[in-house]
Amino acid sequence: MRNLNEVTITQAVTASLAGCEDARLRGVVMKLVEHLHAFARETKLTEAEWAKAIAFLTAVGHITDDKRQEFILLSDVLGLSTLVVAQSHAKPEGCTEATVFGPFYVADSPQYAQFDDIANGARGEPCFVGGQVRSLDGEPVAHASIEVWQADEEGHYDVQVPEADGTVTHRARGRLHTDADGRFAFRSILAEPYPIPHDGPVGKLLEALGRHPWRPAHLHFMIEAPGFETLITHVFRDGDRYLDSDVVFGVRSTLVAQWVRHEPGTAPDGSPVDVPFYTLDYDFVLNRAAAAVPA
Amino acid sequence: MRNLNEVTITQAVTASLAGCEDARLRGVVMKLVEHLHAFARETKLTEAEWAKAIAFLTAVGHITDDKRQEFILLSDVLGLSTLVVAQSHAKPEGCTEATVFGPFYVADSPQYAQFDDIANGARGEPCFVGGQVRSLDGEPVAHASIEVWQADEEGHYDVQVPEADGTVTHRARGRLHTDADGRFAFRSILAEPYPIPHDGPVGKLLEALGRHPWRPAHLHFMIEAPGFETLITHVFRDGDRYLDSDVVFGVRSTLVAQWVRHEPGTAPDGSPVDVPFYTLDYDFVLNRAAAAVPA
Repeated sequence: MRNLNEVTITQAVTASLAGCEDARLRGVVMKLVEHLHAFARETKLTEAEWAKAIAFLTAVGHITDDKRQEFILLSDVLGLSTLVVAQSHAKPEGCTEATVFGPFYVADSPQYAQFDDIANGARGEPCFVGGQVRSLDGEPVAHASIEVWQADEEGHYDVQVPEADGTVTHRARGRLHTDADGRFAFRSILAEPYPIPHDGPVGKLLEALGRHPWRPAHLHFMIEAPGFETLITHVFRDGDRYLDSDVVFGVRSTLVAQWVRHEPGTAPDGSPVDVPFYTLDYDFVLNRAAAAVPA
Repeated sequence: MRNLNEVTITQAVTASLAGCEDARLRGVVMKLVEHLHAFARETKLTEAEWAKAIAFLTAVGHITDDKRQEFILLSDVLGLSTLVVAQSHAKPEGCTEATVFGPFYVADSPQYAQFDDIANGARGEPCFVGGQVRSLDGEPVAHASIEVWQADEEGHYDVQVPEADGTVTHRARGRLHTDADGRFAFRSILAEPYPIPHDGPVGKLLEALGRHPWRPAHLHFMIEAPGFETLITHVFRDGDRYLDSDVVFGVRSTLVAQWVRHEPGTAPDGSPVDVPFYTLDYDFVLNRAAAAVPA
């Protein structure tokens, strides 16, 4: 334990974990220490660079609050989020794929009924979204909970543009349920590409790395139903210029869909629309949850 | 770039760095991504564990302020600080070794003259510290700047115990200079072992890992002089029970010294002391800075 050098330190730290009674925690922290140390050794990380890293993480921590999660953003742009999602969701062929959660989910999303306009004043071209939730064997999933969230035409989620008094009015975000046939339908606005928040430390990092901060246009979905694995995913808009350079590495071909443009006329819900509008039809296929082990 | 899995994601992220013009930054971030991803793959990190890690880092960020640096503490307890210090200070035999900086340095340390009492009211048994700063060839280093900081007998640094109005009175911390013979002397208090701050997320981590939070008794020193490498180190107190289990892995045999106890009497500075007191004599040997390359 005395006179540790840059090589022997690793064994000393892992040995210090011998008293940890949580075998999984011990194993994860051992691997973390091994890789963290190997990273520092292989790069010959200097004290000045270490100090910069401490200052960077401090800035990430300080900009993070209940409306902004810069650590998730950091995980996203380093590809860690996509990696963890990918290795957590090995599913049968035919199930809708998962992708990254992102930093803009909120738990208290407003409740809507079928055909409601979840935009709630968010600016953008009208878009009518509909589809069906099914199991892998084709059965409709009735009363599934569907949460949707998306940015407005300026690329902002509601939590990024609080009111003057600091509160957030939820816009372009909501929760609804599928009907008895597993169908859902709602009105919102057209998804547009947008840059992730890049006025903070993660934005500075991307700039230093010569990377753009853009995401291709997408809608976020979280779909939950008893007996099924929760699905957290996006639907991406075909033709978007950033589909092959998504800053958070989240695009999956099966999640890219056609948003169809229509001249002013009658919307899918039967209502008249006096401006051009879009429609998106997308079905979700849920994976059954692993059977619960009887106690 | 589409349909990345837990293996192909790594190459996609490193490829995204191709436009980075700072070769060192690119190299460091590539290694970071490789090790971060390998860590997540080898542990099969789950989404729930990833979310816990995000919450942990957020808590580390939120407890960090201008008086508390929990990210440095985290680096210290994971051995990263010792690793970086060790690989940054390959020095000729005979030079005083460096050790970790720790989270309690402050830049605006009060100035003192020789023989002053830097305790400034900090509680603890009196301790008289003296020594000489020399170069490797034995030359005294005159007018070297010496910064000292230490905890009080309750294990607290001044920045951990602010006044009622939130300001900090600097105690057991100060800067002085060596005299023309490279000598320094000051009065302070006896160093005692103490636990690192363990009321925050790093403390919770240590507890979950079955590790104690204690450091062996030590004085921090930072010594600067023109023409020499800056020395950041500690002097440890021989006989301390934590010398072989320092929570931050910072002990070096050559930095362990005898604190000598004396009955009430005359201090090294000639003043009478009516309680038992300690003396510490420790010399520092600085390494010459690499010669500047002519422009």
